[in-house]
Amino acid sequence: MKKLINRPDDVVREALEGLAAAYPDTLRVHLEPGYVVRADAPVTGKVAVLSGGGSGHEPLHTGYVGRGMLDAACPGPVFTSPTPDQMFEATKAVHGGAGVLFIVKNYTGDVMNFEMAAELASAEGIEVESVLVNDDVAVTDSLYTAGRRGVGATVLAEKIAGAAAEAGQPLKAVAEVCRLVNERSRSMGIALTSCTVPHVGHPTFDLGDEEMEVGIGIHGEPGRSRVALRPADEIVEMLVEPIVADLPFEPGDDVLALVNGMGATPLLELYVVYRKLHELLEAKGMRIVRRLVGSCITSLDMAGCSVTLLRCDDELLRLWDAPVSTPALTWG
Amino acid sequence: MKKLINRPDDVVREALEGLAAAYPDTLRVHLEPGYVVRADAPVTGKVAVLSGGGSGHEPLHTGYVGRGMLDAACPGPVFTSPTPDQMFEATKAVHGGAGVLFIVKNYTGDVMNFEMAAELASAEGIEVESVLVNDDVAVTDSLYTAGRRGVGATVLAEKIAGAAAEAGQPLKAVAEVCRLVNERSRSMGIALTSCTVPHVGHPTFDLGDEEMEVGIGIHGEPGRSRVALRPADEIVEMLVEPIVADLPFEPGDDVLALVNGMGATPLLELYVVYRKLHELLEAKGMRIVRRLVGSCITSLDMAGCSVTLLRCDDELLRLWDAPVSTPALTWG
Repeated sequence: MKKLINRPDDVVREALEGLAAAYPDTLRVHLEPGYVVRADAPVTGKVAVLSGGGSGHEPLHTGYVGRGMLDAACPGPVFTSPTPDQMFEATKAVHGGAGVLFIVKNYTGDVMNFEMAAELASAEGIEVESVLVNDDVAVTDSLYTAGRRGVGATVLAEKIAGAAAEAGQPLKAVAEVCRLVNERSRSMGIALTSCTVPHVGHPTFDLGDEEMEVGIGIHGEPGRSRVALRPADEIVEMLVEPIVADLPFEPGDDVLALVNGMGATPLLELYVVYRKLHELLEAKGMRIVRRLVGSCITSLDMAGCSVTLLRCDDELLRLWDAPVSTPALTWG
Repeated sequence: MKKLINRPDDVVREALEGLAAAYPDTLRVHLEPGYVVRADAPVTGKVAVLSGGGSGHEPLHTGYVGRGMLDAACPGPVFTSPTPDQMFEATKAVHGGAGVLFIVKNYTGDVMNFEMAAELASAEGIEVESVLVNDDVAVTDSLYTAGRRGVGATVLAEKIAGAAAEAGQPLKAVAEVCRLVNERSRSMGIALTSCTVPHVGHPTFDLGDEEMEVGIGIHGEPGRSRVALRPADEIVEMLVEPIVADLPFEPGDDVLALVNGMGATPLLELYVVYRKLHELLEAKGMRIVRRLVGSCITSLDMAGCSVTLLRCDDELLRLWDAPVSTPALTWG
């Protein structure tokens, strides 16, 4: 295992300490229990948006904490859900009196723990709404979850719900737009290599030199099939067709596209992927009106990519374009 | 070789086409010869800032084209200098009447070709200044160059010179601040794995499972030594000590720090590196006043990192903080 870490037991804490040292103007880190909140939390009168999940997907979620996106992120151990206690403490730290939205990727542990945290918060009189993200079309039911997994749409949901909250919208409305993002998003990914969990020390799965895993999850859990490595253009087709067929996306649709690297994939390759995605969607009469190209929701050191499409309208675009200031996303 | 590409011969062109499709509001791509210019080029009366070099270091340089940074980037084939013709055509495309600054990483091919391009431009009556970046303290003379290599400081030089040009400073002043950035910057990197050049199809060098290369160049050329893999904290010390000793940086110095991933290194690990860097510099009485943590100047799919420090003053910070709008860097 070749990683820039010290002891596997310390990697999450040390990464959080590094994050805190790097972005003192944007966020604050609490270590026991572990959570990250925006520097000016709690913002009185504003709905707070909170997410979390296992570590190893950075910048998700901690890198999206800041003005216009998440008020709080709860990082669990690598690929392991954070505890209800982490979520509850973070909830109290960001609650500004207008309620808290939980954005929950659909993994069994996360779902259960966020439910318990919501109960704890309710018992303290904090109003909570939860939105489940389950955009991965590759498989239903897998090693980590029942139903579809939550993947790339999480980034889009956090940005757009964060903007709605920042604009002063009430909790029900923020939750509603977050649900809308999930309903209109679809994703799928492939892996060229496995990832290696620090505690485990060897790759999660074996993949031959000429093989790839199609429909991979973000923890290295199996996807739809293992097939011979293809040229990038064919890989993009294998991702786009199931995504488009599932919603379905239709001619005339304006979409936001996320071309996401899984952690060890260079930007040069993501541009090659974007090129084909653009061409395929254009041929289908769809138009990419906004895009993110980068490693936004990763699986440690996995090589591969995923594609997420979100059907947009003017309101979603307005929220997408709203200013954001986090370690990983900044504009406006 | 597992890459998201089609044919090795097409990867640079296809990545440029993807870049063009993704960022039509920011930049325009010209394919024969290949160069990228900001969407509103040429900007009349403004000094134009141009850089370039072999592909495979993305986002450098193409991802830094846009308002407040580069007017043009010339991408060569992977790890191979662009031609004087590319540079000359790009120069003419961005020249707004106030001259053009060439930012040249110190590699033999780049230096020679930028010199020829400067001659061609002069013959057309375009005033050109060139600044050589050579911040790598690891080695003098190597496979690709005589003297020190140009690495991480290039990103800082492009941002700061770009801001000076955007502010309307004349060519001599823009070149001067660019030279100042180089003079006050020092870098060093390590590799945990080799990279694989698409045309070659196998790793550039072999590195054992328990080995790392210290002082690596950005093309996989050898560094200072090959040693046993260490914990991240020791690796950071091995990078920081030579950097600090070389300028030398001194107690009381305010620095801008770049913690850079080499292409296949996840952000989680870069945060662990940043943590130790912060601690070491604090112990030396230095203060990190600005930072970049990410994969900013890469070596294809190499795993590893580099550290760059720039001694700052108020003027450099003002230019650093000035608005920038490129695919890879955006703020203000």
